[in-house]
Amino acid sequence: MNFELTILGTGSASPQLDRNPSAFLVSLDTDLILIDCGEGTQYRLLEHKIKHNRIRHILISHLHGDHYFGLIGLLSSLNLSHRTEPLTLIGPPGLSEILSVQFEHSGTDIAFDIQFIETRPDEPTLILDHPRFTIETLPLAHRIPCNGYLIREKVSKRKIRKELLPENFPVPYIKQLVEGHDVTDDRTGEVFKVEHFTFPSLPARSFAYCSDTKYLPELVPLLHGVDLLYHEATFDDALEDRAAKTFHSTARQAAKIAASAKVGQLVIGHYSSRYKSLESHAAQAQSVFPATRLAEEGLVIPIGQIRP
Amino acid sequence: MNFELTILGTGSASPQLDRNPSAFLVSLDTDLILIDCGEGTQYRLLEHKIKHNRIRHILISHLHGDHYFGLIGLLSSLNLSHRTEPLTLIGPPGLSEILSVQFEHSGTDIAFDIQFIETRPDEPTLILDHPRFTIETLPLAHRIPCNGYLIREKVSKRKIRKELLPENFPVPYIKQLVEGHDVTDDRTGEVFKVEHFTFPSLPARSFAYCSDTKYLPELVPLLHGVDLLYHEATFDDALEDRAAKTFHSTARQAAKIAASAKVGQLVIGHYSSRYKSLESHAAQAQSVFPATRLAEEGLVIPIGQIRP
Repeated sequence: MNFELTILGTGSASPQLDRNPSAFLVSLDTDLILIDCGEGTQYRLLEHKIKHNRIRHILISHLHGDHYFGLIGLLSSLNLSHRTEPLTLIGPPGLSEILSVQFEHSGTDIAFDIQFIETRPDEPTLILDHPRFTIETLPLAHRIPCNGYLIREKVSKRKIRKELLPENFPVPYIKQLVEGHDVTDDRTGEVFKVEHFTFPSLPARSFAYCSDTKYLPELVPLLHGVDLLYHEATFDDALEDRAAKTFHSTARQAAKIAASAKVGQLVIGHYSSRYKSLESHAAQAQSVFPATRLAEEGLVIPIGQIRP
Repeated sequence: MNFELTILGTGSASPQLDRNPSAFLVSLDTDLILIDCGEGTQYRLLEHKIKHNRIRHILISHLHGDHYFGLIGLLSSLNLSHRTEPLTLIGPPGLSEILSVQFEHSGTDIAFDIQFIETRPDEPTLILDHPRFTIETLPLAHRIPCNGYLIREKVSKRKIRKELLPENFPVPYIKQLVEGHDVTDDRTGEVFKVEHFTFPSLPARSFAYCSDTKYLPELVPLLHGVDLLYHEATFDDALEDRAAKTFHSTARQAAKIAASAKVGQLVIGHYSSRYKSLESHAAQAQSVFPATRLAEEGLVIPIGQIRP
């Protein structure tokens, strides 16, 4: 299954011409999950030729404008384009009221089904259990209620080695093997061992999204071993005090979280508009966690091992 | 006094990469009036290097998203940039609620003064009487309450011809002449005629903004003689039925209004995304009203006669 991250916005609250506000696409097979939706996100989708009808889930981390001001426009455009596919919208308390007030005053009837799931930003929750993946919330510490998201593939099934099985081997037995149970043939008493008759399942991959938050070591156990971590890095070392004061993180702090949680790869973004160059961000983070990448507009990063 | 229109958006509801949603700047001397504020307008201001702190008035025509989804982002950015100048915001019922719900959930305290003036979209109203100009609302006929705006310079004073006056001519007498009254000198009985001792005042200039509306001949008397009329022209002749059904206008209908109202110049915009070329819009409008221009992104048009 295809599993990758596309970065649509690397900026923070102050508008910048060369950096868009937060928006991230996770593609899982043919479906897309959009995480955060700053102003103009629908135009980024057009630029990258991404069909917005493929978006089945939208997750909003918190109600600062650089993370959600583009949502009302995107939903209105989905409606204008005669969408029929349902949409799951996950976000904090208040989001539903913000949208419904605007739909009401604009006389908009949304013709597709929106399932709204309200987060409880202060506790980690399994918020969505999809046949192919789960979405958990990650409590963050920001100036207003805010949570990150952790998307995990479900463990894939073992792959059967058909060529080793007898002909007309019963389908229920195949199912048992694929699910990891040894089989004893009722008719013959013969035992078929999982290890012999199947290939092992591939490890489930995972992506975690942490924006916006102050440096928060409590995240480490929740992030343990994720394949790809996006963590905000609004500031560099020189502005560590300002990071603490505004409930943001530095690039080094993001890297510390990544190192302690033993993640596979870290990508940092949400850069303050004061930084024209990001060399200090890169150097400071990589000195702590070498597998750090800088987020760039339009960058696509595979999550975990690439699968056929 | 400088008086000109800058066009920041020529598109309509469906998002288009080469046309932005509605936003128009009227500059009056050093102050700016922003009319409508579609998604991304604050980025257009950055692109055109327009200092958003010069915006003193924002006028919203109606609550369809392509006319106001950028407002919350612009106001938030004004606040982030430590604005202190007060702002007058004029818009339809509902706008104030939409903004306050979002300020509340984002924990935003707007630190500058916003004076909100609610329009009554169904009747023409003198909504703002400024020392240098007036703003009137123009009732339009759209699917939801909607009004246009008419901005008129105040009549400028007559210019005194000092070189013709006797020395030590009393200041109160000068004031009378400038205001258009003949003067009789109390001391000598001499009469000073306005026509001889002053140059005539320049005619007051005016700009009218009509978007979105169906073809509405009732506008003609309200628009009589304005120097520049912006009128929406979502469709061309071939889609006149669709225009009527969706409460929009064709280019030809906009031109009919302009011709009947004897305006100085017409500019049309708010183009449906289906039109790649605008040749039919231009040809059909100009066949009725030759002084028609097509709106283009970034186009600047002087309003009325240019003044020193």
